Amino acid sequence: MSSSIQSSSEAALWATYEAALNGPSEGNPFVDVTLSAVFMQGDKQIKTTGFYDGDGVYRIRFLPETTGEWSFVTRSNAGALDGVQGKLDVAPAKADHHGPVRPANTFHYRHADGTRHVSMGTTAYAWTHQGGALEEQTLASLAKSPFNKIRMCVFPKHYRYNQNEPELYPYEMLSKGRSDWPGKPFEGWSFDFERFNPAFFQHLEQRINDLAAIGVEADLIVLHPYDRWGFSRMTPAQDDLYLRYLVARLSAFPNVWWSMANEYDFMASKSLDDWNRMIEVVSDSDPFDHLLSIHNGFAPFDYNHPKITHVSIQRQDTSRALEWRLAHGKPISDDECSYEGDIAEDWGNISGSEMVHRFWLGMVSGGYMTHGETYYNDSETLWWSKGGKLTGESPARIAFLKRIVEEGPDEGLDPLPHTGRYRIMAAGGLDHVKLPDLISPMPGEEDWVPARIFYATAGQPHRYYLSYFGGNQPRELNVAVPPNEQYSAELIDTWEMTQTPLADSVKRGDVLHFTPKPYQAVLLKRIDA
Amino acid sequence: MSSSIQSSSEAALWATYEAALNGPSEGNPFVDVTLSAVFMQGDKQIKTTGFYDGDGVYRIRFLPETTGEWSFVTRSNAGALDGVQGKLDVAPAKADHHGPVRPANTFHYRHADGTRHVSMGTTAYAWTHQGGALEEQTLASLAKSPFNKIRMCVFPKHYRYNQNEPELYPYEMLSKGRSDWPGKPFEGWSFDFERFNPAFFQHLEQRINDLAAIGVEADLIVLHPYDRWGFSRMTPAQDDLYLRYLVARLSAFPNVWWSMANEYDFMASKSLDDWNRMIEVVSDSDPFDHLLSIHNGFAPFDYNHPKITHVSIQRQDTSRALEWRLAHGKPISDDECSYEGDIAEDWGNISGSEMVHRFWLGMVSGGYMTHGETYYNDSETLWWSKGGKLTGESPARIAFLKRIVEEGPDEGLDPLPHTGRYRIMAAGGLDHVKLPDLISPMPGEEDWVPARIFYATAGQPHRYYLSYFGGNQPRELNVAVPPNEQYSAELIDTWEMTQTPLADSVKRGDVLHFTPKPYQAVLLKRIDA
Repeated sequence: MSSSIQSSSEAALWATYEAALNGPSEGNPFVDVTLSAVFMQGDKQIKTTGFYDGDGVYRIRFLPETTGEWSFVTRSNAGALDGVQGKLDVAPAKADHHGPVRPANTFHYRHADGTRHVSMGTTAYAWTHQGGALEEQTLASLAKSPFNKIRMCVFPKHYRYNQNEPELYPYEMLSKGRSDWPGKPFEGWSFDFERFNPAFFQHLEQRINDLAAIGVEADLIVLHPYDRWGFSRMTPAQDDLYLRYLVARLSAFPNVWWSMANEYDFMASKSLDDWNRMIEVVSDSDPFDHLLSIHNGFAPFDYNHPKITHVSIQRQDTSRALEWRLAHGKPISDDECSYEGDIAEDWGNISGSEMVHRFWLGMVSGGYMTHGETYYNDSETLWWSKGGKLTGESPARIAFLKRIVEEGPDEGLDPLPHTGRYRIMAAGGLDHVKLPDLISPMPGEEDWVPARIFYATAGQPHRYYLSYFGGNQPRELNVAVPPNEQYSAELIDTWEMTQTPLADSVKRGDVLHFTPKPYQAVLLKRIDA
Repeated sequence: MSSSIQSSSEAALWATYEAALNGPSEGNPFVDVTLSAVFMQGDKQIKTTGFYDGDGVYRIRFLPETTGEWSFVTRSNAGALDGVQGKLDVAPAKADHHGPVRPANTFHYRHADGTRHVSMGTTAYAWTHQGGALEEQTLASLAKSPFNKIRMCVFPKHYRYNQNEPELYPYEMLSKGRSDWPGKPFEGWSFDFERFNPAFFQHLEQRINDLAAIGVEADLIVLHPYDRWGFSRMTPAQDDLYLRYLVARLSAFPNVWWSMANEYDFMASKSLDDWNRMIEVVSDSDPFDHLLSIHNGFAPFDYNHPKITHVSIQRQDTSRALEWRLAHGKPISDDECSYEGDIAEDWGNISGSEMVHRFWLGMVSGGYMTHGETYYNDSETLWWSKGGKLTGESPARIAFLKRIVEEGPDEGLDPLPHTGRYRIMAAGGLDHVKLPDLISPMPGEEDWVPARIFYATAGQPHRYYLSYFGGNQPRELNVAVPPNEQYSAELIDTWEMTQTPLADSVKRGDVLHFTPKPYQAVLLKRIDA
């Protein structure tokens, strides 16, 4: 017999709506019971998938993208869950609710409501597996930081500095193994990969909501290789069951991004065919078009894959953002450029100043960046994995950079094609570019001899030019803006976080002088238009 | 009528021997008169080319490579110069005379007598065109510096900060043009490209000998694009005449390297065919097998060309030395990695610490490096072009590096194939390497689980391991030497120029602890063998 459920009073635009239903608890509901729903408003129909949450409770979630009345009806192979009808009246969005982040303007990110998202990521792979006190500390640190995205794994992590067991496991445990590193991964551990542990996922959801409350996107790593329990080497059928369950639970959360894997190419038991299949499973199961990508260790995935929404690459040379833009035509996130820290591992010990440099270089090359921190401490609470407290020198400088970018053009920073640097990259690098191509005017701008700027320069033409010098330390800069335009000029010290006016009004051909020093930038803003 | 010339009393191993002859001065002796000589000792025959040095004087030069008696006989289309015979008794080499530098041990340089040459270059393109006082100052600066090679142009230079005219021109001037930068190059200037100015070349030779006296190799740039006089756009016949004249004059100088061009690809009037022809002309004309290479602006030349003895590349990422070794199997010189300085041009304003970093990274990646300095001063005497005085922070640190390398294995520093970094490069980079290939043992070293070292590490296996951390700042290093070997360990601060013992004796698996800081290195030296 079907029952009818009234809309929850909290239904609001871009807020997770949930309907709970009681159904069968015998057998294995995770695999035995199918449940879906169609949500309708006018011509619009959105099909969602429900899931079993334990104790005979089933849930259906929905992320309203328009206000007003919506209705839904369920389908299930269990009579009690089939044909259930409901209504919800979607109120306007609450303060700070902007909907999922999606690609915008080819290379940038915006929330569904159009709000700009200047993505500044950080990394704490296993922060949700550390227990309440540390997890609360992580949230408090994040709330005070510039970061509005966190790369985090669904599953717990096995690695150096990560020998503690999680409080909760994603599956019903059958037998317990060892926890030491490197130890003997998988030995002794067994789980029922067809019986999820709802408490594990409820906890994850709580933490994702906690992130939403402080304006942080959860870049959720679905699979990863750093595993002693066996979650990295399930069968294809078990993987697909997991993916569908995860997406059914989380796709209505506005601040979720799907990261299919961390270092997919380090997962020996998965083939490219597996990844392509799993990308389809997640993409097909998600009615709300969340961002979807996959992160490499060595070889980048094929980011031209039509279901991949953005590049989520690992590379230390963040200037290559421009190259990846040209290759893929999607937003670029360099999601691991090394971590600020001092551990032995070569990926985990760059200085704060090097991290800040990589952020500036990446951003002015047209990308978005992700931070991480690996300073050793005796409790082995390294931010990069467990979270805790940020202690490095880069976050304050990243906040400074973020403010500058947010104050810049609403379209974001685009590398400017008039520069020598852009033309070299567009030609395929220094091995291929020819000098005449580099210094000839661009079509339509014959009166504007192209700026012979080899510094990373981004902005919006005729309005805003931000040149970052990196390790270079020029003592002067030739103003290479279009003719007959007036700009203000300021010097930015990216480390000292100072902005110093250089001139109230400059035009093409003027020369700006300043004290040479590494890691400075010059910002030119149009003042006569 | 042929005359006979006795050997000069100064003939000595690896010293330039010269015989002067009187001949015709009418017409244009530079093109009308041919002159060559065959030098003989036992079975050995070496053919050299003579040249006209003005005022009816012709010269034949020879670089003895063995001691004892040599004889020679001339051939000429001028009767007075034909069939002249001479003898010379070649004494042992004088102190510090070691003969030309040549490739050795595939990737390194040695003098002809086997003496190791740890090449540390610098750059002063136009230093021989600045007049006596400044040229003497340049020599005095060089003598106190670590540099034992200087990149220098035969022809004068037209560029920003280079508006002064040289005291001497290589050709007979027909008309004078303008000197300003950028000015109108070539306008008004004309020369007789078939009449050399012997005084110009005599002066150049004096300066090359001055360099030899302080142990500095002249990496002689034969052609370059930065020209207002027309020397960069002569006809092929004029180029070949010049090349043959230059080589006839200079091939007997022990400290000459042929650099066919600086930034050959910026010389619009020359094709690849021209460069290949000119390489053959120089190579065929040189009886003494001097080093020969060609330097790029953007696209590197094909360094697999059989007449090219070493790679003389321009690239900022000096870690690529390892990649170029694998591609070309020749010594690697990164001859422009930017200049320490503060001028506006992006190639001329890296910090001293960045220059030192690029030197260390290049050397530990298996290459040799060249320095340059471009600090602005009001007299526009920038070392990179005019010479003068070195004022930067890098030379003292380069001297420190040079001493460490010279104290290391006589075979030189070779990147060690056990490292992850080497394997990544050998596989074609991170896009291509597979994790299992990276961590599997190498054939013959199955008992030696390969070091998971990703820092640039060079030395000689089982004896000497120098790991440079660059911008990384580890707090510890796992000792990854072969089993059952004992090493001393020291920490090197490349900027502070300190060497601090870390342990008298360490073995595989020990962990070294130290204070994390960028730009450090660890040196392990075998103590039990």
